[in-house]
Order: sequence, then structure tokens, then C-alpha cells
Amino acid sequence: MLERFKVAEEDRIYVTEATINAATKSIFQALGVPEREASIASDVLISNDLRGIETHGVSNMLRNYVAGYQDGRLTPAPEVVITRETETTLVVDGGGGLGVHVAPDVMDKVIAKAEKYGLGAACVTNVGHMGASGYHAMKAMDHDMIGLAMSTSGSSVTLPTFGAIPRLGTNPIAWAVPANKMPPFVFDVGTSQIARNKFTLAKRVGAKLEPGWVAGADGIPIMEEMDVPDQFGPPWLLPLGGTRENGSHKGYGLGSVVDILGSILTGIGPGFIALTPGFHLMAYKIDAFVDPGKFKDDMDVFLKGLADTTPATDQERVVYPGLLEAESESERKISGIPYHVEVIEWFEQIASELGLNYSLRN
Amino acid sequence: MLERFKVAEEDRIYVTEATINAATKSIFQALGVPEREASIASDVLISNDLRGIETHGVSNMLRNYVAGYQDGRLTPAPEVVITRETETTLVVDGGGGLGVHVAPDVMDKVIAKAEKYGLGAACVTNVGHMGASGYHAMKAMDHDMIGLAMSTSGSSVTLPTFGAIPRLGTNPIAWAVPANKMPPFVFDVGTSQIARNKFTLAKRVGAKLEPGWVAGADGIPIMEEMDVPDQFGPPWLLPLGGTRENGSHKGYGLGSVVDILGSILTGIGPGFIALTPGFHLMAYKIDAFVDPGKFKDDMDVFLKGLADTTPATDQERVVYPGLLEAESESERKISGIPYHVEVIEWFEQIASELGLNYSLRN
Repeated sequence: MLERFKVAEEDRIYVTEATINAATKSIFQALGVPEREASIASDVLISNDLRGIETHGVSNMLRNYVAGYQDGRLTPAPEVVITRETETTLVVDGGGGLGVHVAPDVMDKVIAKAEKYGLGAACVTNVGHMGASGYHAMKAMDHDMIGLAMSTSGSSVTLPTFGAIPRLGTNPIAWAVPANKMPPFVFDVGTSQIARNKFTLAKRVGAKLEPGWVAGADGIPIMEEMDVPDQFGPPWLLPLGGTRENGSHKGYGLGSVVDILGSILTGIGPGFIALTPGFHLMAYKIDAFVDPGKFKDDMDVFLKGLADTTPATDQERVVYPGLLEAESESERKISGIPYHVEVIEWFEQIASELGLNYSLRN
Repeated sequence: MLERFKVAEEDRIYVTEATINAATKSIFQALGVPEREASIASDVLISNDLRGIETHGVSNMLRNYVAGYQDGRLTPAPEVVITRETETTLVVDGGGGLGVHVAPDVMDKVIAKAEKYGLGAACVTNVGHMGASGYHAMKAMDHDMIGLAMSTSGSSVTLPTFGAIPRLGTNPIAWAVPANKMPPFVFDVGTSQIARNKFTLAKRVGAKLEPGWVAGADGIPIMEEMDVPDQFGPPWLLPLGGTRENGSHKGYGLGSVVDILGSILTGIGPGFIALTPGFHLMAYKIDAFVDPGKFKDDMDVFLKGLADTTPATDQERVVYPGLLEAESESERKISGIPYHVEVIEWFEQIASELGLNYSLRN
């Protein structure tokens, strides 16, 4: 994450992983989510916070989920049903449950199929937000597999190249690939210039939007720094690349791929009509292609080669997707996770609302 | 393709598809490629030219292939061997043959596996350039499948974000998805800011490189327009996005995914060590997820929705990946393919060198 999005030191309150995890789990349970699913959901969110992916941890997402349970949009104990299945594929109706706990269970089934046949894939529909796609892709790594996770966003916020009306979500995509000694490769990105909920984060820490990140109602990319808008667009997000000259047709195409595999292939139609999330999950068994030991050693060579690249003269180091996240995780497991004081206050307020009894301040 | 890369009207010579295809096929055959493979290879290249993908047609690529056969780097009649196989996957040794004709045969096997099990994938090694990844992905569409093709480039020309030494190729990736009435979705892009061989094309038509496309030996992105360099780097290509602020870490990660699936998963190690191309090909059977008729109707709605998007006030229209290419194909099947006069001259020269007898000028 860019430095500007980080919580300023004076606004930080550090909370241990165990404490925030228990508090989060208790919130899910208080809203009717069964114990097992509440555990999974908390693990997903706290894993994101540990790895420094604040946009997809408890700071931004949890209050939306709470609102979803409270207004009936989310089913706390959903009936999850397989609606179509082959040797390698399945389509799942998530019963209106939160993707954060539905997706890991589906990913387990995908992994079992890949174990048997070499490849496995699932589409999931009638489901809420998946938290962050990286977590679900990462589940494959423990089985010597490569994991892939995509999600459509359930809302249109991203413009096609040259368009003035949004047609895609932020449509994230993640691949996770195990290595041997090096921290794994975990590539987890939105296909728009920035994640929509980075607006919230930016507002909280007083950051600005960069040139080429959004376009106004006329569809023309705004090429100056600007304040975060107060309400839901316009300005709309530009696809990865920003302008056509700078390759935005590539980000637009990649976002469309997510729409096709995550939404149209599930049977709910294009994202701009479905207006509800859809997932595509996949696992590749490494042994179906090459010996996993050799593969992971080669991944070490690859990742070390990337990290050891001579940096540009104005930079300190080169990293690869997943490296900073692994470093953040090691550090935060010891020092705790820094939350903005405003997030802690929200936890305190919701505790009193739900009659919960936890303390996040030492 | 950006307007600037197109051949100027006064430099154009129009040649019919049949004429250029026959000439190209005769060149392959004269170099020892069997008739069937020569046909496939010509079809791939001329398909790219018809679709307006000049970077990957005969103008740039054919002379490299000819040189490859002449100096022994490419085997004209390779022995292609399957070295590993499961229900859904195969790994193929291309016998040193040109990927342009090896990949379509492997893709047929991938499609057969997907037909039976829902998904199919292959890795291919010991093989030359694949032409353009889009062609191979598109083969899946006739079988009501989604196709995916990736290739590593066999050379390091693209910088990691913040790096000063190239570690990746241009590492292209393509997805092809059938529709019903609308031209299909064919997303076929390099994961660097531009294709390396667009340098050649730009030089031929006198175009310049855009700000944020390349970085100098110091690794710092060059943010002014510049002339095309005369020799092989530096300047090196920047990953899709250009600068970190503009999302180059996403292009860098996507290029790394291609390296992992195309090179490391084949068993030849990272691209920057293998320094030879590797392919990853995949097919998803649509019926394993949803009724193909419904899927293709939904694709029509999606693609029409994208193309009908209100354009930005400074733009004429919104397109989607594959639409302009389909329009170009329709037009060029009638009017012929416009080649730069310099390309025609090369065809004439190679004809005399190989003792061939064709005429490309009316």
C-alpha cells in the first residue's frame, strides 16, 4: 500500500491478533453466524489486517457486514447448495451468506477436485462480499497447489476505457503460489486503478487521489491530484492503466475477464445487471505439471531474483507481490495490529449495541 | 492499436488474404516445415494481420522465424512429445519447433481434456515463439469453451516496479470468450506497457514512445515522449501501469503470473534463467458451469452494454477487447491487408533468396 494510506502514528492503537480476532468473532456470533463460520470469517479479516491489507480488514468491511446482517441483506446461517457439478467444476448457491466464510468452504471443494483430477474450479453466486480474494487463493498453497480467486463487486463503479458510465466493479483477482524458503507469491489486486473502499481509507487518513485514478461525469480522466469525493460517484474509477495511452484498455479487459468468469459464468449475467457479487475460484495441482519440490525451489530462485534486483537509483529496494505482506504479518504478530482510533471507537460502540464485553485498549 | 502505429496511407500496399497466406506458407515450406504445419503457421500470422494485430503478423515476426530456421535455432519438423499427463493436464516438449504451429496442436489436446472433464490445461517448453496468444485462446470458442493462452518471452526486457534491471519478458496473456450475435471477447495483451516489437513498428512508421512506457538504465521511468531507441535496451520496458503511483505493481504482478504458469510450471525455471519461451494454455468448458446458450446470450448483453456505453465527451465510441479486431477482419477480408512497402520488399527479397515465385503487387 502507498505510504499515504497508512494510519498516522499518533492516531494508532495497537491491538493483538488474538484480541481483535476474538472481538470480531463475537460480533459475528452476536449477529447469528454459527461458531465455525464466525471463526472462519474473523480469520479472513484479521489475516488481511495482519498482512497490511487494511482496505479489506475490520476497519472498512466489518461495519458493512454488520449493517448487512441487521437489515436482512445477509443470511447469518445460510444453506449453501451445489447447483451444478462435474469432475473438476462446481457451481454453488451461497444461500445469501457472507462470502468471507462461504468462499473458504467452496475453495476446499475446489482443492479436493484438483487433488483428484489436476485442476478444479468453482463459480459462486447468491453470496455476499468475499473479504479479500488473496486469502481464498492462498488456501491452495498448503496443498502444493496454485490458487486463483476472483470476485465481481456487486456494483458498477469502474469506467470502460473511453466511457462516461461505469460498467464494471473493482473486480479483484488474486493468484497465490507457494515457494520453499521465500515468502509465497500472493498477487491480489483490483482491476481498477484503486479499490473503491480506498476512498474511505484515504478520507480517514486525509490522503488525496492521484492524477489518472478517476474521471468526472464527462468520462475524461482527471489528471490532477484531488480530494476524496464525499459521496458515491461520479467521479468514477478508471481501469488499471488510467488513460488509453497508458494502457487502460488492458485494465478494462482484465476487469471484464473477472466479470465473465465471476458473474456471467455463474449464470447471473453481467455484473452491471446482476448487481450482486459472483466468485470464481480455482486450484492447479502443481504435481500435475512438475515435481512440487522442484517447482518450489524454482519459485525461490524467481522470487529471490526479483527481490535482489538492483533498485532504481531513487528507490531503496525491489519487492514482489506478497513480500511486504509477509513482512507485515511477521511484525504485526509480535507488535500487534495498528488501528485508527476511530475504528476502535466503532468497536466500542458496536459492543455496547450488541451487549458484548471486550476491551481493545490495554 | 493506437493510431500512430498504423502504416501511413502512402506507404501501404494492399494484398489479399489468400495471396499473402500462400506466399507465407511457401516460405515455411521452403525452409523445411511440413505442409500441414506450414498451413497452420500461415493461418496464425495472417489471422493476426487480418485482425489488425500487425505487431504479430508477417511484418515483424516472419523474418525472425526465417532467421531462426536458417541459423538452426528452430527445428522445421519437430518431434513433439508429451512428457507428463493427467486427466486434465499435459506438459509438452515442443521439439524445438515454432510455437506458431506447435501451440494449436497442443490447444486441441487441451480442448479434448476440457470436453471430457470440464477443464484442461497444458504447459509447453522447448518451443519457439507462439505468434500471438489470442489465436490459440480463440480456438476454444468453437467448442463452446473459454480459452486462455500465456507465453513467456524468452528474454528479459521488462523491469519490476522500482527495479533497474529487467527480470520479465513482455509476457502476453489472452482470454477468448464466445458470444452469440456479438463479435467475441478476445483480450490479448502484453503485461508490459507496450510490446517490445512495437519498437520495430514504431520505427518503421516514425512514431514516438509515450511518457511512462520505458525507464533508462537508472530504472527511473522516463516521463517525456522519446524517440524509439536504435538498439536493444536500456531503455527497458515498464510493466503495465508505468509508475507505482499509477499501478505498475499490478502489471508487474500479472507479468510474474505469466512467468510462473508459462515457465516455472513447465519445469524450465524462471523466465530470466530459462531465456526461452514457455506456454500455458487452458480451456474451460462452459457447460461445466452454465448452459452455453444462456452464457452466450448473456455475453451478448455484456458486450453490447459495453459497446453502447455513453462515451466520454472527447471520444467517439466505447469498444471492448476483440471488437475493433473483428471489424478489421471483416474489412480486410474484402479490401485486403495493408502492408508497409518495406514489408513487401522483404517478401520479394526472400522469394529470390529461396527461389520462390509469388507476386504480392497487383
